Amino acid sequence: MTAPLALGTVHGVGLGPGDPELMSVRADRLIRSARHLAYFRKAGRAGRARRMVDGMLRNDVAEFAMDYPVTTEIPFTDPAYTDLLSGFYAECTRHLCDLAATGEDIVVLCEGDPFFYGSFMHLHARLGGRVPVCVVPGITGMSGAWTASDLPISWGDDVLTVVTATLGEEELVRRIRDTDALVVMKIGRHLPKLRRAVAAAGRTEAAWLIEYAAMPEQRVIRLCEAGDTAPYFAILLIHGQGRRP
Amino acid sequence: MTAPLALGTVHGVGLGPGDPELMSVRADRLIRSARHLAYFRKAGRAGRARRMVDGMLRNDVAEFAMDYPVTTEIPFTDPAYTDLLSGFYAECTRHLCDLAATGEDIVVLCEGDPFFYGSFMHLHARLGGRVPVCVVPGITGMSGAWTASDLPISWGDDVLTVVTATLGEEELVRRIRDTDALVVMKIGRHLPKLRRAVAAAGRTEAAWLIEYAAMPEQRVIRLCEAGDTAPYFAILLIHGQGRRP
Ligand SMILES: C[S@@+](CC[C@H](N)C(=O)[O-])C[C@H]1O[C@@H](n2cnc3c(N)ncnc32)[C@H](O)[C@@H]1O
Ligand SMILES: C[S@@+](CC[C@H](N)C(=O)[O-])C[C@H]1O[C@@H](n2cnc3c(N)ncnc32)[C@H](O)[C@@H]1O
Repeated sequence: MTAPLALGTVHGVGLGPGDPELMSVRADRLIRSARHLAYFRKAGRAGRARRMVDGMLRNDVAEFAMDYPVTTEIPFTDPAYTDLLSGFYAECTRHLCDLAATGEDIVVLCEGDPFFYGSFMHLHARLGGRVPVCVVPGITGMSGAWTASDLPISWGDDVLTVVTATLGEEELVRRIRDTDALVVMKIGRHLPKLRRAVAAAGRTEAAWLIEYAAMPEQRVIRLCEAGDTAPYFAILLIHGQGRRP
Repeated sequence: MTAPLALGTVHGVGLGPGDPELMSVRADRLIRSARHLAYFRKAGRAGRARRMVDGMLRNDVAEFAMDYPVTTEIPFTDPAYTDLLSGFYAECTRHLCDLAATGEDIVVLCEGDPFFYGSFMHLHARLGGRVPVCVVPGITGMSGAWTASDLPISWGDDVLTVVTATLGEEELVRRIRDTDALVVMKIGRHLPKLRRAVAAAGRTEAAWLIEYAAMPEQRVIRLCEAGDTAPYFAILLIHGQGRRP
């Protein structure tokens, strides 16, 4: 009789905003020693997370690319979107559990911080109770963005509001009016709506758009200089002006 | 005639939430090679930032401890508080500029992320235009806190609001009512007020207090289990429950 095999651990590892030097020491160590690597990507693309670890991997690493079945082709209010994605996450989870059952640890690459609007959260919710899961926090995309802007985001008792540009226009206006500092995520094709909302709240002059923060393509522009769409990696910032002795 | 000496650079380096392995690879490298190190601390204390880098420093490192002249002894609404602190920051800035003028680089240790409610921001604002300044983002205390809670903070199109417990009670209630996910910083002696505000907003069951996230003393408790004060390193979280396929 042999002892039952210990389960492997699934590590959800935050990569930070883009520059590999902004990974944590722990993330760096886990990635360099990983035997099994998993990551999300848009089907047919190399995937930003995977590209960030180019040159860091063991020669014998086994890779598991999790190709999104859909990204923006179907609106997320469509039940078909939810079904597709939830089936996809369930399948990825099954694969990770099967691997862990053989005693293997797996590193799942996560852009920014895994628990901040991250896709890994959908795996984490399904893995819980089935296999050991360990999360390594990361520097968020928004920290990368305000660092790129070279201005602090929040001072003293500033209120900071983080929203996604997927909210309705009226709701965006209300949120922008009611905060000291603002971060807007997931901009993409919502940029014209976001621009109108910022203008309606009277904050256009204070708004910055940061594209590809901490990546080679990094660009910091005023909102009024932006075009009609933003890339996937884009964040809008309004910096707080709070108490400062 | 000798060429004018190039100015040294002041590096504001984010240390992350506490665990030295959660520093970025760049922070780790800069700290290990630093000839000049500066950090804030409460007078008479070792200082958390300085303790985090124990064992990482060169033997010949020169240290510049910046002792706060005041922390919570005077209310920050008192003009004396502002005067004291602004004189203190000006003096620290002068010292860093003098050092940089001799061509020396200086690493300033910053808890969490330097541009997120950080003390370094007060130096950054004064150093600008005088010497080269470079900021290395870090994992925030709040990322450390939600990782410790083992639950994601924000999903889908959740709104995340970050406030400090220094706000008035009514304002806290309003903010808590009007958000999906919540982070409260700077709790300390404001805990009773914060607890009342969370209760008035009907969110007590959902509220977690994270003390010393990612530090050896880490503690994750429900708000209802907390006492009457929180330590300096404490964050209250209410996790978002947004869209999740
Ligand atoms: C699904 S969320 C993931 C957020 C990530 N977990 C984090 O901690 O930043 C994707 C959004 O994050 C933002 N983002 C993440 N990294 C970024 C970067 N380096 N530059 C600009 N935006 C970024 C963009 O707004 C993007 O639409
Ligand atoms: C002056 S602010 C500095 C914030 C820091 N720059 C950051 O990025 O987290 C100090 C507050 O940060 C929070 N904080 C920072 N690190 C923390 C940790 N490891 N655990 C709990 N709270 C922390 C506490 O609420 C504390 O009162």
